[in-house]
Amino acid sequence: MSGIVKTPEPPYYAVIFASERTEGDRGYGIMADKMVELAARQKGFLGVESARDDQLGITVSYWDSIESIKVWKENSAHKVAQEKGRAEWYKNFSLRVCRVERHSFFEM
Amino acid sequence: MSGIVKTPEPPYYAVIFASERTEGDRGYGIMADKMVELAARQKGFLGVESARDDQLGITVSYWDSIESIKVWKENSAHKVAQEKGRAEWYKNFSLRVCRVERHSFFEM
Repeated sequence: MSGIVKTPEPPYYAVIFASERTEGDRGYGIMADKMVELAARQKGFLGVESARDDQLGITVSYWDSIESIKVWKENSAHKVAQEKGRAEWYKNFSLRVCRVERHSFFEM
Repeated sequence: MSGIVKTPEPPYYAVIFASERTEGDRGYGIMADKMVELAARQKGFLGVESARDDQLGITVSYWDSIESIKVWKENSAHKVAQEKGRAEWYKNFSLRVCRVERHSFFEM
């Protein structure tokens, strides 16, 4: 199931990040990869799912607790990326912190 | 902010649907559009965000309550689409029901 994250039993937490990009790469691709690598090393990280087309990008990261999300939000390299996102990469974005109440998986 | 849904103040609910498609369209595109139209007419629907690339598709729909999500899940035309999804369109998928605890928006 590459792409789909097999998370543990709920409850756990999801951060839904939806974004509309500015034109051109402007170093975005490299930084995005770096941030996924870095997030994956954080305590409480459960996985990430991501898709992007011409209209919109959606990245959902999964975490064991609100505490782990807060620590990641304050990570200094992540803060630099957040700043660059606001200044250069994104036209619009939304960020939602959610508690996952239940889930199901299907494999063909 | 086309693409990004301006939802009301939390709490509200999100259904995160991530999927890996089978090869070919097989009537998927038309049905997907129909389902968004139909969902938009359901009580308690707050909006939908969607992105798909070669790896993965992510669709997040927003709802006012768990009750509204249940009613939509049981909608008869939606049930037909769910069946076709399992039989023809998806290799793998995950479905997560979440309570949105907080959100923020950024516009350039």
